[in-house]
Amino acid sequence: MAERSMIFPAAEFRDRTARLQAAMAGAGLGALLLTSAADIFYVTGFLTRFWESPARPWFVVVPAAGAPVAVIPEIGAALMRRTWLSDIRTWEAPDPRDDGIGLLAETLCGLVPERGRIGLPMGPETALRMPLADHDALGRRIAPRLFADATACLRRVREIKSGAEIARVRAICAITGRAFDRVPEFARPGCPLEAVFRAFQIACLSEGADWVSYVAGAAGPDGYADVISPADARPLTGGDVLMLDTGAVREGYFCDFDRNFAIGPVSEAVRRTHGALWEATEQVLGAIRPGLRACDVHRMLCEALQRRGAEPAGGRLGHGLGLALTEWPSLSALDETPLRAGMVLTLEPGAVVRPGRLLVHEEVVVLHETGAELLSPRAPSELPEIGG
Amino acid sequence: MAERSMIFPAAEFRDRTARLQAAMAGAGLGALLLTSAADIFYVTGFLTRFWESPARPWFVVVPAAGAPVAVIPEIGAALMRRTWLSDIRTWEAPDPRDDGIGLLAETLCGLVPERGRIGLPMGPETALRMPLADHDALGRRIAPRLFADATACLRRVREIKSGAEIARVRAICAITGRAFDRVPEFARPGCPLEAVFRAFQIACLSEGADWVSYVAGAAGPDGYADVISPADARPLTGGDVLMLDTGAVREGYFCDFDRNFAIGPVSEAVRRTHGALWEATEQVLGAIRPGLRACDVHRMLCEALQRRGAEPAGGRLGHGLGLALTEWPSLSALDETPLRAGMVLTLEPGAVVRPGRLLVHEEVVVLHETGAELLSPRAPSELPEIGG
Repeated sequence: MAERSMIFPAAEFRDRTARLQAAMAGAGLGALLLTSAADIFYVTGFLTRFWESPARPWFVVVPAAGAPVAVIPEIGAALMRRTWLSDIRTWEAPDPRDDGIGLLAETLCGLVPERGRIGLPMGPETALRMPLADHDALGRRIAPRLFADATACLRRVREIKSGAEIARVRAICAITGRAFDRVPEFARPGCPLEAVFRAFQIACLSEGADWVSYVAGAAGPDGYADVISPADARPLTGGDVLMLDTGAVREGYFCDFDRNFAIGPVSEAVRRTHGALWEATEQVLGAIRPGLRACDVHRMLCEALQRRGAEPAGGRLGHGLGLALTEWPSLSALDETPLRAGMVLTLEPGAVVRPGRLLVHEEVVVLHETGAELLSPRAPSELPEIGG
Repeated sequence: MAERSMIFPAAEFRDRTARLQAAMAGAGLGALLLTSAADIFYVTGFLTRFWESPARPWFVVVPAAGAPVAVIPEIGAALMRRTWLSDIRTWEAPDPRDDGIGLLAETLCGLVPERGRIGLPMGPETALRMPLADHDALGRRIAPRLFADATACLRRVREIKSGAEIARVRAICAITGRAFDRVPEFARPGCPLEAVFRAFQIACLSEGADWVSYVAGAAGPDGYADVISPADARPLTGGDVLMLDTGAVREGYFCDFDRNFAIGPVSEAVRRTHGALWEATEQVLGAIRPGLRACDVHRMLCEALQRRGAEPAGGRLGHGLGLALTEWPSLSALDETPLRAGMVLTLEPGAVVRPGRLLVHEEVVVLHETGAELLSPRAPSELPEIGG
């Protein structure tokens, strides 16, 4: 038998399945059909970057009781056999005649009674990773069984991280923290932003990231206009604020936090805004606890910024984190999700420096019954200055 | 006005839109609704790694005539304004009450007459990147307009690369070729495979990749059991074949090719199989041309391997490449797509060394009317030996 490559013991996955099955029972679901990288990794431990190829769909079915069943392209069978699953059904994909739909329909019909409902994530922050036409065909093949929305089930379970998961997020946060410590080595005045991005990714890898799924950032006087752009060739210039934000990955788990750096002396407005962001975060770090709602934390961050004379920017000021760069809930004015112990969250306040220019500050925490524990190394209270 | 960040001149995008609109006219589509990173980058030049966050949907509508319209979260507006689009409609996402569906429905209803059909990619190698429940709600909001499958339109257009696109793929292939040249510097006997993966990603970045979206590989005696696994801690050992496969990215365009290395002397079976793979590729490089079908090339590769006593492995032996790690068509027995000049393809023959162990060899080509031109630097005919 091939060597097992699981990141966690099988007991961890059995527990996840049991929690999902309890949620499914409460929702009256006879099975759960998963198609996304994060959901399938969560249930099986199947970790591969092959998701980057859109050519093939992958399916895992969580039945009402018993172990999940994988219905996957043959090219993934060797890797799936190294997870805790033993019922692995494969087809030779891509097959333009039937790309796994017949095998999947047969599997679902064997696991779910005719009057049963099959849960699919259909709600916010989900997407079905299979061709839409195949989804429609599958619906006809499983009739009279029906699809039903399983977002709430998945979300309630995935939102609460186990101790083993929290340790993974802590590990990648520490790795990335060391990479941020090295930014002054390469982010010198005159260095093009795209070279900074490359050097930062190299630092993340050198410090122990398995890969770097996300880097964004920007640099400019009095802050930056947006926070999702790739780098351009503009050289860092005295007076810029440089921001780097990253989702590096270790053993399938993400970090997501940023750091700001002053390239030489920066304006008083930048220093004041950075101070307000740091202090608003500090205040919420001390106040956040289970029982608050996501929107309460959003309001706390906004009010803390406003008390310090800063104008909050952006629609959400933090979010869940773990198997994906962003997860439920959103720390926004409209998200009433109650916070629970075991949630891993980012606190991500942004503030306007002047019209069209903002600063964003981000940390990662885990919620315990007693309050928040930082998983990212805390940013310095004073904006660090490079190459002054 | 903000600095434009387009990778190509606006004329390139206008031409892409015109080609799509010609295909849409042929298919009777009143608009095309795009939701995926690759499709939206293709039409607009909107390039960001923010797609890694599943929190927000993004929409671009290509009308029957005129410029595309972006319907996107406000967080992306600054970046989208730096593309060639000018009609950019935004909402504050994520919004659990209406995450852009009202705005999108209004946009579609304004562009498409009531009897019109709105194309969505629904077919092979596509997925709808928005919540399924929102897709259903959108369908009700646009009635009596109907959705129709637009996979063929998109595919016919995206499959043919412009000169500017081919130059981008050539550039990232050259970068990755230099990274492969450096593998003997770090892939020494005793080095854990996970350290090799990190060093290889660092080499890709150092040589000029913007980021590295995909690395897979494996090492073992007489080849490897699968080609999609992440790295483990097993050290490279004399007699192993090491394979590294990568999809590095430069300016939004991917390479996808692999290289094999012998860690010290390897078995005669490995050398013989590697020779068969190299020669089969060489033969097809000389024979592939527009007018052949994808399945013809698959058969040529299989027959060339068999003539050399090697057993073909795997369901497809190559695929399209460009804005994604893999694109249509598939070089498989079942794909009858006619090859056309301007297609960028990988040739990826695999062969069984012994049961459960295979070797895979991959190159990137562009098809001209006169035949194939290599975009990846050709692998050496003899398996290179490291640390002998």
